[in-house]
Amino acid sequence: KMLGRVLCTVLFVGAFPSPAEASQGHISVVLLGATGDLAKKYLWQGLFQLYMDQVSSGHSFTFHGAALAALEPGQRQMFEVLKKLSCPADEAPDRCAVLKDQFLKLSQYHQLKTAENYTALSREIETLLRQEGLKEAGRIFYFSVPPFAYTEIAQHINSSCRPPAGAWLRVVLEKPFGHDLQSAQQLAAELAGFFREEEMYRVDHYLGKQAVAHILPFRDQNRQFLDPIWNRHHVERVEVVLKETVDAKGRTSFYEQYGVIRDVLQNHLTEALMFLIMELPANVSSAPEVLQHKLQAFQSLWGLERSSAVLGQYQAYGSQVQEELQEAWGYVSTTPTFAGVLIHSDSLRWEGVPFLLTSGKALDERVGYARVLFKNRAHCTQSGTLRDAGHSQCKPKQIIFHFGHGALNTPAVLVSRNLFQPAMPRESWKEAEARSDLHVFGQPLSDFYVYSPVKERDAYSVLISHIYHGRKDFFITTENLLASWAFWTPLLDSTSRQPPRLYPGGVENQQLLDFEMVSGGLAFTLAEPAELLSPGGQMPSDFKAIQSKFRQSPLVSAWAEDLISRLASDMEEAAVRSVARSGQFHLALSGGSSPVGLFQRLARHHYGFPWQHTHVWLVDERCVPLTDGESNFLGLHQHLLQHIRVPYFNIHPMPVHLHRRLCVEEDRGAQLYAEDIVALVANASFDLVLLGVGTDGHTASLFPRSEHGLDGAPTVVLTESPVKPHQRMSLSLPLINRARQVFVLVLGKGKHEITTLLSRVGHEPRKWPISGVSPSSGQLVWYVDYEALLG
Amino acid sequence: KMLGRVLCTVLFVGAFPSPAEASQGHISVVLLGATGDLAKKYLWQGLFQLYMDQVSSGHSFTFHGAALAALEPGQRQMFEVLKKLSCPADEAPDRCAVLKDQFLKLSQYHQLKTAENYTALSREIETLLRQEGLKEAGRIFYFSVPPFAYTEIAQHINSSCRPPAGAWLRVVLEKPFGHDLQSAQQLAAELAGFFREEEMYRVDHYLGKQAVAHILPFRDQNRQFLDPIWNRHHVERVEVVLKETVDAKGRTSFYEQYGVIRDVLQNHLTEALMFLIMELPANVSSAPEVLQHKLQAFQSLWGLERSSAVLGQYQAYGSQVQEELQEAWGYVSTTPTFAGVLIHSDSLRWEGVPFLLTSGKALDERVGYARVLFKNRAHCTQSGTLRDAGHSQCKPKQIIFHFGHGALNTPAVLVSRNLFQPAMPRESWKEAEARSDLHVFGQPLSDFYVYSPVKERDAYSVLISHIYHGRKDFFITTENLLASWAFWTPLLDSTSRQPPRLYPGGVENQQLLDFEMVSGGLAFTLAEPAELLSPGGQMPSDFKAIQSKFRQSPLVSAWAEDLISRLASDMEEAAVRSVARSGQFHLALSGGSSPVGLFQRLARHHYGFPWQHTHVWLVDERCVPLTDGESNFLGLHQHLLQHIRVPYFNIHPMPVHLHRRLCVEEDRGAQLYAEDIVALVANASFDLVLLGVGTDGHTASLFPRSEHGLDGAPTVVLTESPVKPHQRMSLSLPLINRARQVFVLVLGKGKHEITTLLSRVGHEPRKWPISGVSPSSGQLVWYVDYEALLG
Repeated sequence: KMLGRVLCTVLFVGAFPSPAEASQGHISVVLLGATGDLAKKYLWQGLFQLYMDQVSSGHSFTFHGAALAALEPGQRQMFEVLKKLSCPADEAPDRCAVLKDQFLKLSQYHQLKTAENYTALSREIETLLRQEGLKEAGRIFYFSVPPFAYTEIAQHINSSCRPPAGAWLRVVLEKPFGHDLQSAQQLAAELAGFFREEEMYRVDHYLGKQAVAHILPFRDQNRQFLDPIWNRHHVERVEVVLKETVDAKGRTSFYEQYGVIRDVLQNHLTEALMFLIMELPANVSSAPEVLQHKLQAFQSLWGLERSSAVLGQYQAYGSQVQEELQEAWGYVSTTPTFAGVLIHSDSLRWEGVPFLLTSGKALDERVGYARVLFKNRAHCTQSGTLRDAGHSQCKPKQIIFHFGHGALNTPAVLVSRNLFQPAMPRESWKEAEARSDLHVFGQPLSDFYVYSPVKERDAYSVLISHIYHGRKDFFITTENLLASWAFWTPLLDSTSRQPPRLYPGGVENQQLLDFEMVSGGLAFTLAEPAELLSPGGQMPSDFKAIQSKFRQSPLVSAWAEDLISRLASDMEEAAVRSVARSGQFHLALSGGSSPVGLFQRLARHHYGFPWQHTHVWLVDERCVPLTDGESNFLGLHQHLLQHIRVPYFNIHPMPVHLHRRLCVEEDRGAQLYAEDIVALVANASFDLVLLGVGTDGHTASLFPRSEHGLDGAPTVVLTESPVKPHQRMSLSLPLINRARQVFVLVLGKGKHEITTLLSRVGHEPRKWPISGVSPSSGQLVWYVDYEALLG
Repeated sequence: KMLGRVLCTVLFVGAFPSPAEASQGHISVVLLGATGDLAKKYLWQGLFQLYMDQVSSGHSFTFHGAALAALEPGQRQMFEVLKKLSCPADEAPDRCAVLKDQFLKLSQYHQLKTAENYTALSREIETLLRQEGLKEAGRIFYFSVPPFAYTEIAQHINSSCRPPAGAWLRVVLEKPFGHDLQSAQQLAAELAGFFREEEMYRVDHYLGKQAVAHILPFRDQNRQFLDPIWNRHHVERVEVVLKETVDAKGRTSFYEQYGVIRDVLQNHLTEALMFLIMELPANVSSAPEVLQHKLQAFQSLWGLERSSAVLGQYQAYGSQVQEELQEAWGYVSTTPTFAGVLIHSDSLRWEGVPFLLTSGKALDERVGYARVLFKNRAHCTQSGTLRDAGHSQCKPKQIIFHFGHGALNTPAVLVSRNLFQPAMPRESWKEAEARSDLHVFGQPLSDFYVYSPVKERDAYSVLISHIYHGRKDFFITTENLLASWAFWTPLLDSTSRQPPRLYPGGVENQQLLDFEMVSGGLAFTLAEPAELLSPGGQMPSDFKAIQSKFRQSPLVSAWAEDLISRLASDMEEAAVRSVARSGQFHLALSGGSSPVGLFQRLARHHYGFPWQHTHVWLVDERCVPLTDGESNFLGLHQHLLQHIRVPYFNIHPMPVHLHRRLCVEEDRGAQLYAEDIVALVANASFDLVLLGVGTDGHTASLFPRSEHGLDGAPTVVLTESPVKPHQRMSLSLPLINRARQVFVLVLGKGKHEITTLLSRVGHEPRKWPISGVSPSSGQLVWYVDYEALLG
């Protein structure tokens, strides 16, 4: 057997410790995809580094390269890679040469294709260890293979290659981990059938980059200084940027399916951002604490909308795709190769601070960094020349985690000298000389405290070491992964049909990819230059709202996001008009899920809305306490009211919980609400009522065949819902029909059937209460999205 | 008579139009203080300019210099000034020489001392006009005299020198217009006894500076571009700055009483700021509209506090004062010669945008400007060198109204080229060449569109022309003046004892006067350098809070502002502790005027207060609707709730207006409030109750000898107040005494008597309800300011 032979040699040269020395036990590392690009470029070198670092740790090692190729060719290819392993600059050449020799002898190729192959590998390991009298510590399986192969390999490992009880299993997975939330969930579920969560090490190699890995320790070690300034009062913006000069040529078969958001933003840049914005755990090395705080940070992020991003595609990409994927002439790819994304958090710490994530291929330089820019809170009384001298408080203040490349061409941590001198761990980071010939962000490098690693390590070496040490905080857990996909998937969905801006590539891009924050979203600064538009690229133009009639009333229709944006604008316009006319705006809002997006849009994009003069009323309410999760008012509060400034007196929740009991007739809640309306709303005529439609044709809380509210006096009524909670309070149809304007919002495929039905039936409120909405002297407008309208 | 003689000569050379030509009538200009500094330097030149401009207007003129000096010496002095009048560069020298000659002949000196002098002057004017057959158009009296002389002169003019019916009177007043709000009100009241509002022209010569005067027209003419960006979403800060190189030497007798805030900030800088921040009137030339909007802008400003300002005094000032005022050795002046002030508005437009006003003597340069700096909302994808080229969106964006001096040495309007090209009136402003050798605010001048006046005019020439044209919008009305003093007086009061930072003067100041915005106020950036402290200057150290006992409970005492600041911090600490313990903080607040400052401080300085988890309760309420001006809740809402984020559900106004009627027993409001407390507050024990004390010893709405609430059950009661509105709702003493902490805030001299009394009496709640506050297991702390404590 080959393994036996190699091992004997190894023992002979002393590479294996004696059983007594190897008291920590034996570790088998299996590299699946041993002859692939990643393995060639980083992984074998990382394993060699691990061996060099840990040869005296008390563990013994064997390294098993594996691939689908047969033994002989695979072995030859693999050893060609191994021969090229280099000795790091900080290692004595003699020692390194000896260790490299040993490493080669401890390494071995396997064809792993069938279940039998895996069983055989496992047996070999066991036999070897028995022969040598070694205890098994654990097995590492490194998946450097395409994702479609994951499930089969995982199944084989689980059924045929697990280490015996008492030894651990660590499987290392490389991205992509899915394509969107659904596929990631599916993949995660499959893997969960084979491995326990603590056995899985999902690699995001950014977490192995020294400057990224130091973000949390930096925040921790400089808590005292950072605590008071690490918030919205002091931070102007946070940027995380990865710019590449290369393009996707030769990789378009992968790239065309992924694009820059899945390739870079969803993982690398998001992770770096999370380290910057998460609440700092008491123990930054505790994987569970870090995970918990990271998940909280994800929770605090505003959902992304189409307007959150600007997208670009370098001009040559289209032809590269056509060539490499042999697409038909005229095929138009909308895969972005450049993206800028604006992210907001509504945490108390970060509310209002823009987080900008940017990445692209074929740009003017290769550089990666995360940058926290502080607000300029200083006024320099001295004139210009004097104020720029020294480390004046009037110079910009920033902290930069420089991942690599760029002008510095090294990982680095930079802190403006007018900010503070950071505490840095001396054993791993050293202060660099203050060169004033180099400029970063318009400032000479001498304006910063600059630190670079004592030993520069590539990300994979770092991560392989962390796998060995079981440092799970450097890897992406399932929860983390799904939180990130949950955050990014809506943007991917809403931009999937959007034509990216074409850019020539390199320095020729000039200012074409510069973008700006405008009313809650992003937009390119320069207008689209006509000459750059794709010649044959007829882009879908179905984003515009179309207008026609529905049930004899005006109909606005568009994709949901555009429809909501249009509705929000129309509401602001109505509000401004009403306040100009009467000094007030009486707005009655419905609850439920449909208006959530609308509420969010109003809160985030409509700073000009005259909230100070708006009265907010409820169209209907469920008979639950206002703080109950079912309460319409609670939803309204969470998504709208807590973000804006409506005076307390102008907020009118329905009194469904008088005397701390729910909708009791004798408490007269409905009458009280009606009395309030009569007292405050001129002529009891709301300026605007927003309604929805149920699949049964109900609107407000007026259900088919309701005893109350479908006719009679314009008042407020208690009603019964066919679904829980049954008791409801609702404006009556006659009261709704007194309004100056009524907008009906209908969203989603689930409403297609009722929408179609409504387009055909007449005024039959007892069957379909919504059909009774017909303002006596006001205007009715339908806002129906394409899914509801067209199915 | 001299006047007759001069007039004859004048008519002879044709300086006077014939009666037919002078159809607009005759104007007499009387310059009081004709030989003073201001007259010499600006006013005569301005009057000469008026004459040159208006000689063909159809008006005829005479100019009457007046002073206390006797005729002969006064006349000689005056004509020496007149001889030196210069011809402006844009005037033909020949014409100017002729006009100057005529001007001299139309000018005449008068001794104006006694009532008879004024009567005589009036008669002379009347006689002359009768002789010449001229109709009288009006009289201008220009007060270039010290303010103590105002009243007497005004009295004389009013009683002896008014023009006949049909002709107007315009009196022109020079600052200072008082020393604080009270003295300004007094002076205004006196003047109002002599002149009608429309007769008074109060000069702020800044309103005559061309760049200041163009602020409103600029905003008006560029409405379309500015409208979307002239607000808190786009503006980062607004600065108004006047820096001088001269010091106060030779003027300390004036300066020592006024200081930089009264001399420059209260008037010049405030007026420029108002033009920038006021809502733009439909007609920017309409004096009433401008005034109305300016007064609204004053209303929107947050009150200034001691922490709103940083103050300095150049080092030589102290000895200059000692010398010039012959003060005793050891006299310490705290008059500031430098001030930086942070102003905030709570208008929807400007909320959160810092307005910084700065002025000082003995600084490094002479320059004045108002600057609107816009937020950087751009992200430049290109690297540094490329992003700084051209007019990149990543360069700063600003609009600067440059009043004069500085590097430009001319009035100018500058607009960043990456912002927009402004519309400017061609007849009065011309585009200047784009010099790139000059830098303003760190940018080459070529980054700006630069406009300078076609004809440069000094402020007094401009204003004298406006007086002639009756353009009251260029002058300070009484309302405007008092609004400004009302705004500035609290700062003057609170800083009157504060030692300013000493600075050496000129470029030596280095960064000593640089300041920063910190937690809602300003602070110098550099710590006070020990060597610069005044050697003998023992400054009062009575600003620190002292602590001892009052009625056997802890007492915190300090000047009001420090006391409130301490109380607010203690409240935040209590809140944080309570939320850490129980997840909630139940806070019961009193109404009235005492806590207003506290509410404002909490809203503006305590970003870390856990409002999301705080429940706000009322200690007592008046039986009025919540939106009534008398409502405690309304005050709480205005000063605190509308500025912070307490969830709607956590706000608990007292139900004094159930069923739209006030405190009717059968509506059971008090019981409902008590039930809410029992339901939500564990053990009905508030975490913190804030109380005040009335001069009669009442607290909450528990008055002496109240039938309810002084003993019995811990509940909520209806009570009767001896003052209107009589009906009240209040927590009872037993309920208050269940609290974990009770803080009692006592402010002002008016409370000295009751404070003294309370220090002596025991537990007698029926006489003095406050004496019954004695938490059964909680803590009571007294916060009493020095005025209440010491009288």
